[in-house]
Amino acid sequence: MKIHLHQTHQTIACFADIRKYIFDVFISKPLTGIHLFPESFLCGYPLQDLCLNYSFITSYQKHLQAISDWAKALPKNEDIIFLMGGIKYTLTPDHLPKKIENVIYLLRPGEELLAIYTKMLLPNYDIFDEKKYFDPGKTVGTLKFNSKNIALMICEDMWPNASYELDPTTELKKTGLSFDLIINLSASPYDISKQEKRILRAKEISHFLKAPFFYVNRVGGEDEILFDGQSFAVNGDELLGQLNRFKKDFTSLNLPPYNKSAYHDVDNNKVTTTWESLFVPNIIQNSKKLPHIKPLNDNECMEAIEALGFGVNEYARKCGFNKFQVALSGGIDSCLVLTILKLHLTSTQNLEAIYMPSKFSGDLSLDISKNLCQNLKIPFHIIPIEDLKMTCKSLFIKHINQDLQGLADENIQSRLRSTLLLARANQTNAIAINTSNKSEIAVGYSTIYGDSVGAISLLGDVYKSEVYMLAKYINKIHHNIIPIEVIQRPPTAELRDNQKDTDSLPPYDILDVILEGMLSYRLNARQMIEMGLPHDDVLSVSKLYKNSEYKRVQFCPIIKIKPKSFGFGYRVPIAKDGTFYSDI
Amino acid sequence: MKIHLHQTHQTIACFADIRKYIFDVFISKPLTGIHLFPESFLCGYPLQDLCLNYSFITSYQKHLQAISDWAKALPKNEDIIFLMGGIKYTLTPDHLPKKIENVIYLLRPGEELLAIYTKMLLPNYDIFDEKKYFDPGKTVGTLKFNSKNIALMICEDMWPNASYELDPTTELKKTGLSFDLIINLSASPYDISKQEKRILRAKEISHFLKAPFFYVNRVGGEDEILFDGQSFAVNGDELLGQLNRFKKDFTSLNLPPYNKSAYHDVDNNKVTTTWESLFVPNIIQNSKKLPHIKPLNDNECMEAIEALGFGVNEYARKCGFNKFQVALSGGIDSCLVLTILKLHLTSTQNLEAIYMPSKFSGDLSLDISKNLCQNLKIPFHIIPIEDLKMTCKSLFIKHINQDLQGLADENIQSRLRSTLLLARANQTNAIAINTSNKSEIAVGYSTIYGDSVGAISLLGDVYKSEVYMLAKYINKIHHNIIPIEVIQRPPTAELRDNQKDTDSLPPYDILDVILEGMLSYRLNARQMIEMGLPHDDVLSVSKLYKNSEYKRVQFCPIIKIKPKSFGFGYRVPIAKDGTFYSDI
Repeated sequence: MKIHLHQTHQTIACFADIRKYIFDVFISKPLTGIHLFPESFLCGYPLQDLCLNYSFITSYQKHLQAISDWAKALPKNEDIIFLMGGIKYTLTPDHLPKKIENVIYLLRPGEELLAIYTKMLLPNYDIFDEKKYFDPGKTVGTLKFNSKNIALMICEDMWPNASYELDPTTELKKTGLSFDLIINLSASPYDISKQEKRILRAKEISHFLKAPFFYVNRVGGEDEILFDGQSFAVNGDELLGQLNRFKKDFTSLNLPPYNKSAYHDVDNNKVTTTWESLFVPNIIQNSKKLPHIKPLNDNECMEAIEALGFGVNEYARKCGFNKFQVALSGGIDSCLVLTILKLHLTSTQNLEAIYMPSKFSGDLSLDISKNLCQNLKIPFHIIPIEDLKMTCKSLFIKHINQDLQGLADENIQSRLRSTLLLARANQTNAIAINTSNKSEIAVGYSTIYGDSVGAISLLGDVYKSEVYMLAKYINKIHHNIIPIEVIQRPPTAELRDNQKDTDSLPPYDILDVILEGMLSYRLNARQMIEMGLPHDDVLSVSKLYKNSEYKRVQFCPIIKIKPKSFGFGYRVPIAKDGTFYSDI
Repeated sequence: MKIHLHQTHQTIACFADIRKYIFDVFISKPLTGIHLFPESFLCGYPLQDLCLNYSFITSYQKHLQAISDWAKALPKNEDIIFLMGGIKYTLTPDHLPKKIENVIYLLRPGEELLAIYTKMLLPNYDIFDEKKYFDPGKTVGTLKFNSKNIALMICEDMWPNASYELDPTTELKKTGLSFDLIINLSASPYDISKQEKRILRAKEISHFLKAPFFYVNRVGGEDEILFDGQSFAVNGDELLGQLNRFKKDFTSLNLPPYNKSAYHDVDNNKVTTTWESLFVPNIIQNSKKLPHIKPLNDNECMEAIEALGFGVNEYARKCGFNKFQVALSGGIDSCLVLTILKLHLTSTQNLEAIYMPSKFSGDLSLDISKNLCQNLKIPFHIIPIEDLKMTCKSLFIKHINQDLQGLADENIQSRLRSTLLLARANQTNAIAINTSNKSEIAVGYSTIYGDSVGAISLLGDVYKSEVYMLAKYINKIHHNIIPIEVIQRPPTAELRDNQKDTDSLPPYDILDVILEGMLSYRLNARQMIEMGLPHDDVLSVSKLYKNSEYKRVQFCPIIKIKPKSFGFGYRVPIAKDGTFYSDI
């Protein structure tokens, strides 16, 4: 029997395209066997409040009906089924959603569309809010097709953790059925190295239920969340096949009998990893360990850069833009952003850089920016801001009788730059791409409405230390396309004379470790100091972090490539007493 | 027996202040009887991700222990209890929260602090995310004190809706106990006229359980969410007392026997309202009705203005600011914002206005702005932006060889203004207050990083039609303190010659009705057109609304005074196919 993996790439709520995909599959290659589609393929994911929107509901219901009518009108064919993710509404007489379920729809030629399984585990942490919208299923899903027993799962069903009351894998075992196939339809958000965790877990489940495991994941960038595809099939320890990442893809595989030969565990009824051991390894031990920023190897660098390029292209395409503007400062962040954009530029897209020096901008910054644009063959504009800034200062002296000094003087440079950048973006119908990194966002080392502007952030989930790793990797592959001076120079905002980032912040290697300690290791200030991190740095970072919530609230979407990121999955009140952060 | 209502006003996570309040109550007036405190009094509400933060957890646990130790050391006293809202952690050996409950803590002199009841209904819609963090209680809470039976509730427990499996009120009845008192500890977010719904529902429950109902609500502005206090007690239909709104308050009331005399319902076992009938009356009928913007009466205007003033003061105080900057445009929104701020200014606060005309600004705009500042006795600065704008234009011609025109030319004026406004804010250590209204935010009629800037939005939950209602109300009470010309003139952004809002938008009375139809009546485009709303307006508003999600994502917190607002309780993806909004 053939299993067909449809790794689809559809825009949320683009119902016409979704129907066309289904109809085309059937027309062009009505292959016999089981056709698998991702979780929520029929509607898109994540929908958030859209799934409560009346216009959305009415359109989606019509869409489902159209598919059902089409399927019913097909000639019967007992050898083909489609299993597709979607949501299922139970509406009140007032057309309010009484219940929404995240389900698998079964499509058989000649029959109506049928929801056959409801997702049991609803993730509700970090970026996930499924319990806000969906009701969980109470029973496992199985299906018999051509005398084969199929175990049905949707995404999180394979990832039980301590907060769930049930483990669907165990419940499937309890049915006593002998399975020939396990399927998992997923909309699984990307982070670096997540794929190996998926495969590891899939192999465990394959052994546990003694059947091949077929996994289909969607492709898409949804604001900050990426879905990477990389659909795969395993049979015990054997990887049967794997689809591309960040690309629509398709394959047909034969369904083999379960292969237990390679299984190394003596007790094959045991699942050996846990969600916690895979996803939060740094916080599940009593003996806390010193946090560190894991160096990214070449593969991880390549993958991260691909993810960032994919994310920004998805956002631009879905919002109807094909031009990008980047403000170069002569620093590493903007250089890296411009380079990543260039590396992913398609033939219909356009990219332009703008450099806006003040009197504090060094010659080195100009040289770096100019050389990078030459290397990348990108149009490069220079607009000096000194005249504008002097006009502002004289306006303040003339009309308010008070010169701009200190912070006001520093910030105004940054805001004049964003004003010019956005004017150029408006002029060329482009979107401006944000260049802040995760370390800056964490401590608020940016000017709100100044260098923090942009439609989407490429590096907002990348610590400064990692920015250097990615830049060095690109230079290794692309022959120092990024001027090496920008990698060697000390970071500076150049908003005043001889300013260096280390005037206000600890060196980035220490800063990033403290931030990672707070965000990913769940350490408090006392613990980090006890571990030997510098006392004053820990306290100053805690304070900066706590005081910059207001900037994060107004920040643009950040492309997420880590398990813990700022953005939609990070929700902290601005107004609070934050002294507990530095409680030692 | 005495019931003491402590309507507290504490900052989130300000543990030292919270302890001091408790200790002071006992020292200054160790009144016998039952002391009631709001939901989550011990920690603050809403905490969002803070309740998962390790630093927060360790500090909070120490705080609880300190209270418990203090209580244990007190001499025993059988005649006093404190019932206080808080959260209760069950931690894993790794100190991860295994379970978090929203509970009532019982404090008795001479005994340890004890969690005695877990909230059963966890709201998870709109701004609420309690299921993301908390586990619900499974059983009702009762307590015996001085031979009185007390029924325990936390906030949402009194508001069952169709999505909950249980109704705690009904479950309490099923215990068969004869109650002498019902208490509800709340952190109930404010919206206009919510208080009458609370009292209505409390009276029903009082009759249903045949006991007086005491309700304590917290006071506070938490970013966009306001808690208004207005704690009260009812006995059947009788209102025993009510505390102030938006103010810390305290009262002691005698506990009377149940008074059924005034009850008008024949079947006193019946609860007559539902959550749906109270909170979503416009969307629970099959026969859809034409949406409208409800005119605000004088009381509602007064209350809304008080709420907005309270909200902005809370935000400023908790973030450590006592100075406000407002950019006046000569339009009604900025005039109203400045006036509301002035009406709520305390003696330690400062307020300043800045008017930044371009060549498109009419004389009328200057007159209005100047006169308003004179009327309000507020320092008024004028900084013309024409020079700056010309400098920008010449920079573009000189360095890019392309003049700024059209949208780029319009937006740059707005962004230069925000740059000057924020420079002045930096110069005076003030926060800039946003002046956008709900209608503009809905259709994206603003320049991102331009007139959309600000630390917090006063009018972001107020439709343009309501802006006029509030302004007229203020003028009635305060003798036309707002120049009447601004109420009479047609709205204009003054970004080009003779521009009027109606060049790009339907008249506000139609626009607002369409928006309210979409947001609060759950109508789709087809329905609104069938009801007689103008076809082209409905479609153009649908399109503008769908295309402005990206601006809302980067918008500042909006003080919430309506059941459905933009902001934290509104979560819609930017990148999507939005054609369904205008599906007719």
